[in-house]
Amino acid sequence: MPVAPVAATALRPLAIGAAKITGGFWRERQEVNRTATIPAAGDRLEAAGTLRNLRRAAGREPVAEGFTGRPFADSDVYKWLEAVAWEQAREPDETFGCWQATTSSLVTAAQEPDGYLNTHVRLAVPGGRFNDLEKGHELYCAGHLLQAAVAQFRATGDRTLLTVAIRFADLLTDHFGPGRTEGIDGHPLIEMALVELYRVTGTRSYLELARYFVEARGYGLLVPPGHHGPAYFQDHLPVRAVRTLAGHAVRALYLASGATDVAIETGDTELLDALRATWRTMTESQTYLTGGVGSRWYGEAFGDPFELPPDAAYCETCAAIASVQWSWRLLLATGESQYADQIERTLYNAVISGVSLTGGEFFYVNTLRVRNDAYADDQRSAVAGRQPWYGTACCPPNVMRTLASLDQLLATSDESGLQLHLYAPATVRAELQGEPVGLEVTTRYPWQGNVTVTITESPREPWTLRLRLPAWAAGCSITVNGADEPTGPVGRAVPLHRSWQRGDQVVLDLPVRARRTVPDDRVDSVRGCVAIERGPLVYCFEQLDQPTGVVLDETAVVPGDLVETDRPDVLGGVTTVSVPARLRDGAETTLTAIPYYAWANRSVGPMTVWIDAR
Amino acid sequence: MPVAPVAATALRPLAIGAAKITGGFWRERQEVNRTATIPAAGDRLEAAGTLRNLRRAAGREPVAEGFTGRPFADSDVYKWLEAVAWEQAREPDETFGCWQATTSSLVTAAQEPDGYLNTHVRLAVPGGRFNDLEKGHELYCAGHLLQAAVAQFRATGDRTLLTVAIRFADLLTDHFGPGRTEGIDGHPLIEMALVELYRVTGTRSYLELARYFVEARGYGLLVPPGHHGPAYFQDHLPVRAVRTLAGHAVRALYLASGATDVAIETGDTELLDALRATWRTMTESQTYLTGGVGSRWYGEAFGDPFELPPDAAYCETCAAIASVQWSWRLLLATGESQYADQIERTLYNAVISGVSLTGGEFFYVNTLRVRNDAYADDQRSAVAGRQPWYGTACCPPNVMRTLASLDQLLATSDESGLQLHLYAPATVRAELQGEPVGLEVTTRYPWQGNVTVTITESPREPWTLRLRLPAWAAGCSITVNGADEPTGPVGRAVPLHRSWQRGDQVVLDLPVRARRTVPDDRVDSVRGCVAIERGPLVYCFEQLDQPTGVVLDETAVVPGDLVETDRPDVLGGVTTVSVPARLRDGAETTLTAIPYYAWANRSVGPMTVWIDAR
Repeated sequence: MPVAPVAATALRPLAIGAAKITGGFWRERQEVNRTATIPAAGDRLEAAGTLRNLRRAAGREPVAEGFTGRPFADSDVYKWLEAVAWEQAREPDETFGCWQATTSSLVTAAQEPDGYLNTHVRLAVPGGRFNDLEKGHELYCAGHLLQAAVAQFRATGDRTLLTVAIRFADLLTDHFGPGRTEGIDGHPLIEMALVELYRVTGTRSYLELARYFVEARGYGLLVPPGHHGPAYFQDHLPVRAVRTLAGHAVRALYLASGATDVAIETGDTELLDALRATWRTMTESQTYLTGGVGSRWYGEAFGDPFELPPDAAYCETCAAIASVQWSWRLLLATGESQYADQIERTLYNAVISGVSLTGGEFFYVNTLRVRNDAYADDQRSAVAGRQPWYGTACCPPNVMRTLASLDQLLATSDESGLQLHLYAPATVRAELQGEPVGLEVTTRYPWQGNVTVTITESPREPWTLRLRLPAWAAGCSITVNGADEPTGPVGRAVPLHRSWQRGDQVVLDLPVRARRTVPDDRVDSVRGCVAIERGPLVYCFEQLDQPTGVVLDETAVVPGDLVETDRPDVLGGVTTVSVPARLRDGAETTLTAIPYYAWANRSVGPMTVWIDAR
Repeated sequence: MPVAPVAATALRPLAIGAAKITGGFWRERQEVNRTATIPAAGDRLEAAGTLRNLRRAAGREPVAEGFTGRPFADSDVYKWLEAVAWEQAREPDETFGCWQATTSSLVTAAQEPDGYLNTHVRLAVPGGRFNDLEKGHELYCAGHLLQAAVAQFRATGDRTLLTVAIRFADLLTDHFGPGRTEGIDGHPLIEMALVELYRVTGTRSYLELARYFVEARGYGLLVPPGHHGPAYFQDHLPVRAVRTLAGHAVRALYLASGATDVAIETGDTELLDALRATWRTMTESQTYLTGGVGSRWYGEAFGDPFELPPDAAYCETCAAIASVQWSWRLLLATGESQYADQIERTLYNAVISGVSLTGGEFFYVNTLRVRNDAYADDQRSAVAGRQPWYGTACCPPNVMRTLASLDQLLATSDESGLQLHLYAPATVRAELQGEPVGLEVTTRYPWQGNVTVTITESPREPWTLRLRLPAWAAGCSITVNGADEPTGPVGRAVPLHRSWQRGDQVVLDLPVRARRTVPDDRVDSVRGCVAIERGPLVYCFEQLDQPTGVVLDETAVVPGDLVETDRPDVLGGVTTVSVPARLRDGAETTLTAIPYYAWANRSVGPMTVWIDAR
C-alpha cells in the first residue's frame, strides 16, 4: 500500500515503524481491525473456500480439484496476508506470526514449478494460462501477491512470500512484453506491484515490464466482452493521453497509481504531468464530497465531469482506497499538500465508512443517499446495510491492509525536515542529516482542532517542520512555545523553520466547527442543497435521529445556528450537529446529523448527505 | 400488441381495420416503418444469424447445429412476423405475404414433434428444455410466438403460426402448473400471450396457465443468479401485493400487462385494483416526462419513487412499448382517459424516439441528457447514437409491431358510442347497435391543435362521441356544427351525446402552444429546471441548434417569450421553440429546442430535456 520510491522524490516516506499512531480516532479503528476484523477474515476466507483453493492447488487436500469462488479469489488471501504483515510492524504478535507462516507456506506450496501461481487456472481451467486476460484476473492476483510479499518483507523481514513473488515475476518478465507475448490484464494492479518489487529487489526488468504494461494500454490489446466498452478495462486511450478518468473506477485508479510509480522511477515528467492533470479533473469534478469516486453502478464507473448523483453513487470502498494510494504517490512525487488533503478526506469519509464500528461488516458501495421509500430488497441502494463478507470480497481485506499500514501515511521527510500530513496522537522518530529527530503529537482531532506537537529529540542544526493546513481550515492559528506564528493561506503546509530544542511545543489550532458546504453549481444532482461538515468529517442525516414524521426527502434545512453536541454514548462517541429545518407542509423542526462514516451502524433506513436548502 | 378481451370491459377495441390513420405525423412514421424499417429488418435477421437458427433447427441447412446470438434470438423473428402481419391488415402486399408465408413455414418446420420450439435449446443445449427458467427465455420466446400467431390470425386469417402456437401452448399446459412442474420464466411475457391465445381459441387451460404464471410469482421459484436480486426477475413479491414497481422495467411491465389481462378475463377486481394503484405510483413518481421508464442502467430497472435522473435514464424503448401495452389494457378495463393520456405521451416521446427518422437505426436507451463533456466512447450515455441493430435486438422489432398496429389504438366503442383516444387524420368505420357508424378526422396534430371530426355515417338513435381532452389542454374549446359546446375539465374525455347526422362536424381546438413545465419538487435530480413542451410533444435542446459558445450544462433559461417557428426544412418538418437564456458568465443568448423524438438525427452531441431555470 504505502510505497518506498528508489528515485528521488519531493518527499520521502519514513522507515516502517518510525511513525506510530498511539491513540485517538484512528488507533481505535486500528485496534478493531487488529482484534476483530483481521482474525474474523481468516475464518471467512476458510468458510468461503478461498484458503481451500490454495490447499488443493498445493496438493494438501485429498481432493485436489475443484475451485470455489470468483476467479480472483486468491487476491483476497494476499490482501489479508498484507494486513497481517503490516500489523506485525505495528506490534509483533505470535498469532499473527503463525498465520503469516502457515499461509505463506501454503502459498509457496501452491506455486507451480515454473513460478506460475493462480489457483483458479490450476483447478478450474487447466492449460488456460493467460488465455483470458480480459476477465481472468491472473496478473491482478499476481499483483496482490507481489504487494503482500513486499509488505511482508518490509514489515517483518520474512522472505517467504518474496521468494514466491520473485519466481512469479521472473516468469512474467519472460512471458510478457515486446517481442514476447503482447498483452495486458483486464484489471490493472500488476503495474504498481512490479514497481514495488523492483524497489525491493533492484531487478530492473520488473520496472521495465511495469512500464510496458502501462504503455501498452489504449491500443486494443484487450477485446471488450459483453456490454462494456474498452474504458471498463482501461484500454480506451494511452495512459499519457488521458485527462479525464473513465470506466471502472478501481481499475482506473490502480492503473493511475502504477503509472505514477512508473513515472517516478523512470523520471518520466510528461507522464507525471498528465497524471497530475487527470487527478485535478477527478478531484474537481468526479469526486464526491466524501472523497468517494465512481458515479455509476453500471460498469462500477467514473461518471462524466459533474455527474455526481448522491443516490446512485457507487463509491466502492476499494476505489476510495485506490484513490488514497494514488494521492499518496503524487504527494511523495510533488510534496503538494492538496494530495494529503484528499487523502484525509477520503480516509475519514469514503474508506472508513466501508467497515462497521465493530469491524465485522463491510460496505462494498458507499452511497450518499437512501430514499425514504427505497425498495427494501434493493441490491443497488445499499439499503441492506453492511455485509459480513461478499462473493467478490475485494473490499474487506483492502480496508484491513489500509488500516494496518495507516501509520506510514502520517509523516514524511525531505532534506529540509519533517512533514506532518495526518493529525492523530502519535510519535514520530526519524533521522535528519544523520541525527535523530522525534516528535510527539497529542490531539483529540478530528473531534477537536487543537493539535500539540512536542519536539522530543532534534538535530542541532535548524530544520523545518511542515504542518498541513487543510483547505477548510481558514482561521486556524499556530503558536510555537506560546508565541503566535503566522500561518499564511490554508490548503498548503506551513513551514516552521528554526533550531528546535527538545521540549519545544507547537500548537496548531484548527477551526473544527460545524459548517455548511454548498456544492459546485454544475453538479445538477444536488442543486439547491447543502451538506454539513465538521473538520475533516462529512456529516449525514440518518432517519433514526430525526423527529417522528420527518421525511428527509421532503425536508429542507433553513438558516440558523448549527448546534454541536458531544455524544460519547452514541456510535462509539461522536459530535452530532443539529440544524433548523422546514417540513414540506411548512412546519419547523430540527434535524440532527452524525458523521457519515458511522451511518448504518444502528439500523439501515433513509439517509442523506446532501439536503435541500431552498 | 393490441388486445381483444372476451370478458366485458368498459371499452371495446374496434375490429381490425375499422380505424385507419390516413395521413399526418403517424402515417409518415408508419410509411417509413413499412417501406424501410421492416424490409431492412428481414435482412438484419438474416445477417445476425437469427433466421439461420430456424433453418438449422428445421433441418433446412446442411449444417444442422450451431446457434448464433443470444438465447432469446427467436423472439426477434416472431416480433418481426407480428409487424408483417399487422402491416397486411393496413394494406395487403405481395412481398409482405411472401415473407409471412416463407417464414411461418420455416417456424412450422422448426417445431419439434411434441410441439416444443426453441432454436437455442435445440441447437445449443440439447436436452436442456426448461432447465434454466431464470435466464433461458424459453417461455419468453414462446410468448412472442403466440403473440405473432394471434396477430397473424387476426390480421390476415392465416392459421399457420396459430397452429404452431396451439401445439406449443398445449405442451406448456401439460408441463407447467400446480401438480405438474412448478416454475415461472425469468422474463415475463408468456402471461399476456397465453391470455390472447385463449381469447382467440377459447381454450380455457391457456387462461388458467396464464393465471398460474401470474400467481406463482413472489415465492422464490426462481434462483436469482449473479448480482441481481429477485426483483430483477419479478419474483420478489406476489403480483397482487406489489404497489410500487421494482426491478427490470420491461419484465415488470410485461408482467403487469399479463396480470391485467388475467384480471380482466377472470373478473379479479382485487388484482385489477392493485394494478391500477401500481400504475398510479409509476406514472406519478417513476416515469420520466417523456413517458419513458427505467431510472437505472444497473439491472435496467425502475428506480425508487422520484428517482428520475435525466442523464442516467435508461428508458429502454421496449419498456416504453410495454408501458403503452399496459395502459391500453387498463384503458379498456376502466375507460379512464388518464390511460390514453399516458399512451399518447409515451408514443410521441419515448417510443418513437427509439427509431431514426429514416427508420434504419434504433435507440435501445432513450436518455434525457447527454453532457457537454460526455466520454466519447461511453457505452452508457447513448452518445454513440442510434444503431442499425443490436446483439440483443429486442427493441427494433418491438417498434415495428407497435407502429404497424397503431391504428388499433385510435378509437374504441362501448354501448353508448365511440371514443377517440389519439388525434390523427383518420377514418373510423364501426357498428353501433347493429348500425354502421363512420367518422373522418382531419388535423395537423401534433403541430396544430385543431381537430375536425366529421360524421360520415350514423345510426338513427342518439349516441355519444367521446373526445379525450389531454391533461395539458386547459383552455381547449369544442364546437359542434359551429356552435360552442362546454368542454368541462381536461384530463378526461368529453361526452358529446346527440342524434348525429352525416356531415355533422365537431371541431376540437387544443391549445398546442409551447409551454414551460416545472418538475415535481421531489424529483431532486432536476431541481430548479424547466422543460419545454408543446401539445403532446416534449422538447429538448440539442447542441447543434445553439449559438456558438453555449455550454448547455452551464446555461439557464430566463423568463421571456417562447417563440415558435415552423421549420418544414428541419428534421422532416418540425416546429422549433426558442427561449431566452443566460450563460454562466451572465451574457444573454437564445436557445432553440426541437421535439425530443427527433434528436440525434443530424449528429450526436450534448442534449438536454430539462434545463436550469434558476
